[in-house]
Amino acid sequence: MASRQFEPPSGTRDFLAGALRTRERVFARIREVFERYGFEPLQTPAFERLETLTGKYGDEGDKLIFKILRRGEHEATGEADLALRYDMTVPLARVVAGYGSQLPTPYKRYAMGPVWRADRPGKGRFREFAQCDVDVVGSGSPLADAEVVCALTDALDAVGVRNYRVLVNSRQALSGLLEAYGIPADLGGGVLITLDKLDKLSPEKVSAELVEARSLESDIATALVGDLTAADAVERMQTVLKDSEVGRAGLDEIGQLLELASPRVGAERIAFVPSLVRGLDYYTGVIFEVVAEGMPGSIASGGRYDGLISALGGPDVPACGGSLGVERIIGLLSSDDGAEHRIDVAATVIAEDTASEVMGFAARLRDVGLRTEVYLAASRKLAKQLKWAADRKARFALIYGAADKDAGVITVRDMDTGEQAQVPTDELAAYLTGRCAPSE
Amino acid sequence: MASRQFEPPSGTRDFLAGALRTRERVFARIREVFERYGFEPLQTPAFERLETLTGKYGDEGDKLIFKILRRGEHEATGEADLALRYDMTVPLARVVAGYGSQLPTPYKRYAMGPVWRADRPGKGRFREFAQCDVDVVGSGSPLADAEVVCALTDALDAVGVRNYRVLVNSRQALSGLLEAYGIPADLGGGVLITLDKLDKLSPEKVSAELVEARSLESDIATALVGDLTAADAVERMQTVLKDSEVGRAGLDEIGQLLELASPRVGAERIAFVPSLVRGLDYYTGVIFEVVAEGMPGSIASGGRYDGLISALGGPDVPACGGSLGVERIIGLLSSDDGAEHRIDVAATVIAEDTASEVMGFAARLRDVGLRTEVYLAASRKLAKQLKWAADRKARFALIYGAADKDAGVITVRDMDTGEQAQVPTDELAAYLTGRCAPSE
Repeated sequence: MASRQFEPPSGTRDFLAGALRTRERVFARIREVFERYGFEPLQTPAFERLETLTGKYGDEGDKLIFKILRRGEHEATGEADLALRYDMTVPLARVVAGYGSQLPTPYKRYAMGPVWRADRPGKGRFREFAQCDVDVVGSGSPLADAEVVCALTDALDAVGVRNYRVLVNSRQALSGLLEAYGIPADLGGGVLITLDKLDKLSPEKVSAELVEARSLESDIATALVGDLTAADAVERMQTVLKDSEVGRAGLDEIGQLLELASPRVGAERIAFVPSLVRGLDYYTGVIFEVVAEGMPGSIASGGRYDGLISALGGPDVPACGGSLGVERIIGLLSSDDGAEHRIDVAATVIAEDTASEVMGFAARLRDVGLRTEVYLAASRKLAKQLKWAADRKARFALIYGAADKDAGVITVRDMDTGEQAQVPTDELAAYLTGRCAPSE
Repeated sequence: MASRQFEPPSGTRDFLAGALRTRERVFARIREVFERYGFEPLQTPAFERLETLTGKYGDEGDKLIFKILRRGEHEATGEADLALRYDMTVPLARVVAGYGSQLPTPYKRYAMGPVWRADRPGKGRFREFAQCDVDVVGSGSPLADAEVVCALTDALDAVGVRNYRVLVNSRQALSGLLEAYGIPADLGGGVLITLDKLDKLSPEKVSAELVEARSLESDIATALVGDLTAADAVERMQTVLKDSEVGRAGLDEIGQLLELASPRVGAERIAFVPSLVRGLDYYTGVIFEVVAEGMPGSIASGGRYDGLISALGGPDVPACGGSLGVERIIGLLSSDDGAEHRIDVAATVIAEDTASEVMGFAARLRDVGLRTEVYLAASRKLAKQLKWAADRKARFALIYGAADKDAGVITVRDMDTGEQAQVPTDELAAYLTGRCAPSE
């Protein structure tokens, strides 16, 4: 970059052709999977009324909302009335509330697009980034949970992510866990926040934090962490949770999700992980995270959130959904994923008064779907134009000199081999169609 | 809508599946044409630094820029440091300035996406709307002008717009016109603004405005308007403009554009229109507008703007480009354009303990590309589920009852005819693949 003045704003990116095509390919593959599941696309505006967003993301979230100044005479007050979309879920709730019976029941929708957060920009953390969500609003069935998990893992398969695992738990199972260990309700939330660190911290550190920061009795903390990190943690939990009603409900919903999703996801890739918590506290049923080898954090996540749509202003309907960490996924993929993008034909313009004819050749090639460029600079030197054709990674170059014109042919140069052929002008399209791979 | 609270913000729209698919289809077809011409996609952030945008659109434009409040401790000051993209041209200039030699020469790029303007919302006028631009930066050749015009008209053809005409003029020809009629340089701009109304007002009214508002002498105004609105206006202008150097240069660039673009566009659909002005004053060479029968205003427009990239902070390079009025074009198209979107298969779940198997059938059908939905609500009543299948416009419904299961078959109901067939479960995918049209 020449100068900061010409960089995109902090935390945002310009996508030039190569990077943008990789992104678009990833989005297209994901979209195809979601469509195959019968999810419908939804696109809401980039901004919402400020009051639609505030108070929905907690104090920390509220600080990250980009606010837009009221326009017109009110501008001088510095007052904001609009705000950039912070996620796809609040707009979904607004749409469910606003369109009601115009939507199918259940409403299965996907949304792909940018969201904006005034986060401190950092490595892999942006102020403008894409989200990619599927949600089912209006079904409390475990089938809906399973469809969400399968749609997300199918999408991971479609974009070429390998070696991932789906970790499953349930908010009801976590409530049962707190009950079973006799943890008072008012300590529960804090305990879960600390337990969520078991994937990063040692069991000893987590136990210590439970005692020091969460006021848990030491023997309870040790027993809890010991059970959750034991080799047979799943079996222990299955025994422990059976003693409480909410625990049994949790085990039941986890069991149903595993039964319904395992055939598709692969039984070895999906498992009950009793220590999985998920930060967001709006989940009410199953929760899940997808982790991939060599990646910190998760590449997809979601769960059931039966109370959220009404809390956000919508009707009281059951709902579940999940989100692909699409920026991370794009980061995972090698940048040469997919074929190198090249043009099919570069048409040179060398002889006087042939520009119109060369444009005509180009038009015919475009009509048969070939990506064709015409040389647009002033030089009439062939060497310079062939260098341009090579720079543009053209598969073939067209040369239409005075002698060609007189003979009713056009010279077609294979840019990979350097071989040249003289092709009658009216056979040009047929000649090249067979020799070029179909354009993307 | 139930309540204003659930509407999108004033001047913006929610796009539900049907409308969004129509839009996406239009964008996809346009993109395909631009790619065939070798234009490269560019995507810049939704917002720019405020100073990048201010002062670029004139006083009126500046007022329409949505400004974003500075975040963090500065928020209370009401100060803005970012602003939503107002068009695609200023970001292009920033990219050309910032990336320089990393870009191909010439840099042919297209950009499609939303821009935001704090305009008073009205019929067909939005605060969030899509723009669709092609530009060639770094070529002063008439071939570049012609490629822009042809790419735009090809795109109009591709999306099904009929009966359009391309009106062509040149800023140099307009300068020659002012010179030929002896109009002082300081009056020129105002005169052109008034002449631009010849497509809406009568010649008499335009003459009157030239005299009253533009201080033109009455006989000059009458002669000028008379010549421009005469049946042989083109011939008169060709004579008049030959007397001035800039006029000759204008005629020359118009002639070259017509010669290069006519074979593709069709000579009857493109013409020199001496009274065409175009509002924006940054054009330096040819200018054009595309008008369609029955549509007020233009559906595409553009021209050559050799000084603009440097005025916007970029290098001093020649450039030309054009823009499709894509919102108008989408409005022109009948909403049933394209096939009705339907799902291929609706899988019912009626018998106990068959949900997992039904999900397995759905997975196999999705694997062969069929859009398949599984019934997600709690009811096990077949009639209710078949109504759902009909509501979803499914081509086929699957019924897997206890008797089917015992017999190793699945009942496939043709939702158009009501006919049912019993298909061995392992032949299901093959059976349906042949009977469903390929998914989009």
